[in-house]
Amino acid sequence: MAESYDLVVIGGGPAGYAGAIRAGQLGKKVACIEWERAGGTCLNWGCIPTKTLLRSAELYQAMLHSEHFGFSCKGVDVDFEKVIERSRTVANTMGKGIEFLFKKNKVDYFLGRGHISVPGMVEIVDGQDKGKVLSAKNILIATGCKPTVIPGVEVDGKRVMTSREILANKKQPKSLVVLGAGAIGVEFAYFFNAFGTEVTLVEMLPNILPVEDQEVSQTLERSFKKQGIKLHMGSKASSIEVTRKGVKVSLEKGGKTTDCEAECLLLAVGVKANVEGLLSKRVELASDRGFLTVDGRYQTSVPGIYAAGDIIGPPWLAHVATYEAVQAVNGMFGASEPKRVEHFPGCTYCQPQVASIGITEEQAKEKGFNYKVGKFPFSASGKAVAVNHPEGFVKVITAEPYGEIIGAHIIGADATELIAEFGLAMGLEATHEDIHAVIHAHPTLSEAMAEAAASVTGEAIHI
Amino acid sequence: MAESYDLVVIGGGPAGYAGAIRAGQLGKKVACIEWERAGGTCLNWGCIPTKTLLRSAELYQAMLHSEHFGFSCKGVDVDFEKVIERSRTVANTMGKGIEFLFKKNKVDYFLGRGHISVPGMVEIVDGQDKGKVLSAKNILIATGCKPTVIPGVEVDGKRVMTSREILANKKQPKSLVVLGAGAIGVEFAYFFNAFGTEVTLVEMLPNILPVEDQEVSQTLERSFKKQGIKLHMGSKASSIEVTRKGVKVSLEKGGKTTDCEAECLLLAVGVKANVEGLLSKRVELASDRGFLTVDGRYQTSVPGIYAAGDIIGPPWLAHVATYEAVQAVNGMFGASEPKRVEHFPGCTYCQPQVASIGITEEQAKEKGFNYKVGKFPFSASGKAVAVNHPEGFVKVITAEPYGEIIGAHIIGADATELIAEFGLAMGLEATHEDIHAVIHAHPTLSEAMAEAAASVTGEAIHI
Repeated sequence: MAESYDLVVIGGGPAGYAGAIRAGQLGKKVACIEWERAGGTCLNWGCIPTKTLLRSAELYQAMLHSEHFGFSCKGVDVDFEKVIERSRTVANTMGKGIEFLFKKNKVDYFLGRGHISVPGMVEIVDGQDKGKVLSAKNILIATGCKPTVIPGVEVDGKRVMTSREILANKKQPKSLVVLGAGAIGVEFAYFFNAFGTEVTLVEMLPNILPVEDQEVSQTLERSFKKQGIKLHMGSKASSIEVTRKGVKVSLEKGGKTTDCEAECLLLAVGVKANVEGLLSKRVELASDRGFLTVDGRYQTSVPGIYAAGDIIGPPWLAHVATYEAVQAVNGMFGASEPKRVEHFPGCTYCQPQVASIGITEEQAKEKGFNYKVGKFPFSASGKAVAVNHPEGFVKVITAEPYGEIIGAHIIGADATELIAEFGLAMGLEATHEDIHAVIHAHPTLSEAMAEAAASVTGEAIHI
Repeated sequence: MAESYDLVVIGGGPAGYAGAIRAGQLGKKVACIEWERAGGTCLNWGCIPTKTLLRSAELYQAMLHSEHFGFSCKGVDVDFEKVIERSRTVANTMGKGIEFLFKKNKVDYFLGRGHISVPGMVEIVDGQDKGKVLSAKNILIATGCKPTVIPGVEVDGKRVMTSREILANKKQPKSLVVLGAGAIGVEFAYFFNAFGTEVTLVEMLPNILPVEDQEVSQTLERSFKKQGIKLHMGSKASSIEVTRKGVKVSLEKGGKTTDCEAECLLLAVGVKANVEGLLSKRVELASDRGFLTVDGRYQTSVPGIYAAGDIIGPPWLAHVATYEAVQAVNGMFGASEPKRVEHFPGCTYCQPQVASIGITEEQAKEKGFNYKVGKFPFSASGKAVAVNHPEGFVKVITAEPYGEIIGAHIIGADATELIAEFGLAMGLEATHEDIHAVIHAHPTLSEAMAEAAASVTGEAIHI
């Protein structure tokens, strides 16, 4: 007989594991089915290993330029295999952590592929727990996404890779073409370039990090060029060819074609929903381009089946996924009224880092906001100069007449940590005056946020 | 004839220069008299050069342990003179920046010692602009503080130093006794130990960083011991003797005496008001242990003479000084109603970093609060593990029944930047629920703040 659960979660990533743990906290009988490893893509093949690699890249760069700090060392040797291995070790440690949390919160953890045979019934159709059937009062689909591939281009894991393959690849390519300059493409471009790979970064849209404020994108473009990365923005890959030596990518821009060759190609052109084998024919869920459609309580078109995280569509961010899953579970069991996502930060962990929340200046214009802009460059920040990271700025966009913050954009060292204050600000509908009124510690990079807010009314002290 | 000003500021540190610039922004005719270099102690002999040195120390430590990251380098040589020189260069750059801001904001900048001969009249009695007399509708005293010395112990700049002398000392001592484990003593102890100096840190009070939450202090003590710093907490220096080889300090604790010898001694035992030569006999200002007494508008006991920053007493922090001076000037010229300082962060930039705002748990107990504590360890943070800084925690103290945050304490990497969010939270009287409701970017250290807030009600996901 099928064991009966209050909740069966399919997928053990940031949405799935968080939802399962939350249900456990609420005293519910809950199961989580993960096909590979607890933590999902984020923890095993995304956020966590990439940030581990990026930390290595930053340190390597700092070591190369350590003379500035008064040091000298005779040659820094990189054991690239070890660099990659550390990222696997960290991912494994964190994965074990999630498994521990499952035990602690009495979440039954199954390995395999969850298949919803009928509403209320989940079969495990593959993997270690294949054949088990779970009966579920509620089902939460949190199967996430996987990298999009390009028709006709085989991902062989050697010449052509997605983020998934490249994270396991222990051999540093001499040259690399990165297709797609969203956060994932940009982070890998920074990482490989930092270690001396010849990197070409290609983006169809006019700017790097196309979703970011244009001033931020342009600043990052200048920095990346200075770092030696070749940029082809507004360029389309019209053909991709695997050759004997590597890959040849033809780029089209304004009618002109440029060929570029490299040892490897990284596809970072987007993601698609993980729905294969998820649903029997008897279970039809409304969807949009593969992503499941949910209501304000994260319920799909079939009562009792919920979905959260990447599987319900953009912005495909781990922290948004976690939030959604916790809200869904809270709503399911009456712990609190579920909320849909309103403001969320977006981060790119290259150097200089990029982080933002709310709308860009371009969007403020488009939407017809009567807005003001405050800006403060890190070159005027004592802390930024002290730590030798004077690049970048903080930009805040406020709406008239009340001055509430509708967008905040940071490029520079520690941007991804600093953005948290603007997150709280937007959550509490704070104004530039509220931020300016707060005493920020000196000397910190966070002062730049107060100064940017102050500059909305011309009251910044240090510019 | 004396030139006439709307405002004459005496002192060009974080209070003085900010006050002068603010008056300039308001279109006032303003002068600033600085005896040494624009930027004052903070910029020239405090915050800025120390943070520059600390960045070098962090990088050196990271390089020593770079094998963990997959690197190997054959010996890291330190040119200590260059390390110190970089800190002077950064201080000079920032000092020039302030001088540029003076010009931009039409602040007349004078070099010398300001002396208030009668209310409304400031003479420059020393330095480059000696002999000039300025007539002032308003005077702002922002002369700050200097390190306290110990009677009978001569600061010779060789064996015995304060922070002032040690920052200019280009020779790394083999061994160092640091007297005083407040922020200044702790930062120098970390810095010199990181570079291999044998450091003994002495504090009269029972814990390191005595103003911090005890759990934080104890965590830092464990870390410092692990790093190789010798700690003598609850110990009094009963005698200090300069010997042929260095210094000999006798420490008394619970009736027992221990001698410790070192090449140098750093006095970090507090600060005292800079008032020498400031006031003529005709100008008597109310004061308390040397620190000037001011009212809610930062006015001293003599109308038209204001004071802000370290000179009006603790907490002796640059950011508090700046805030006070700007408030004073706003009030003076009717730009806004001046506010006195309410919440302010305190930061110590050793590794692990320490930052806090509001009250400690001990104070919450003492004051009889009905409080709750939320805590989250960085060892459970994916980002902290990825960057190899799993030490420390975030602790948040909230008051019942509303859950408003009354204290926040962070020890760990980037604590000094993270604290900014809690600053805004306290400024807006936010609750733990408000922080928990904000989507924090993953993976960041800032998530630990949301998790600490969530843990107040047992809702943290990752512990």
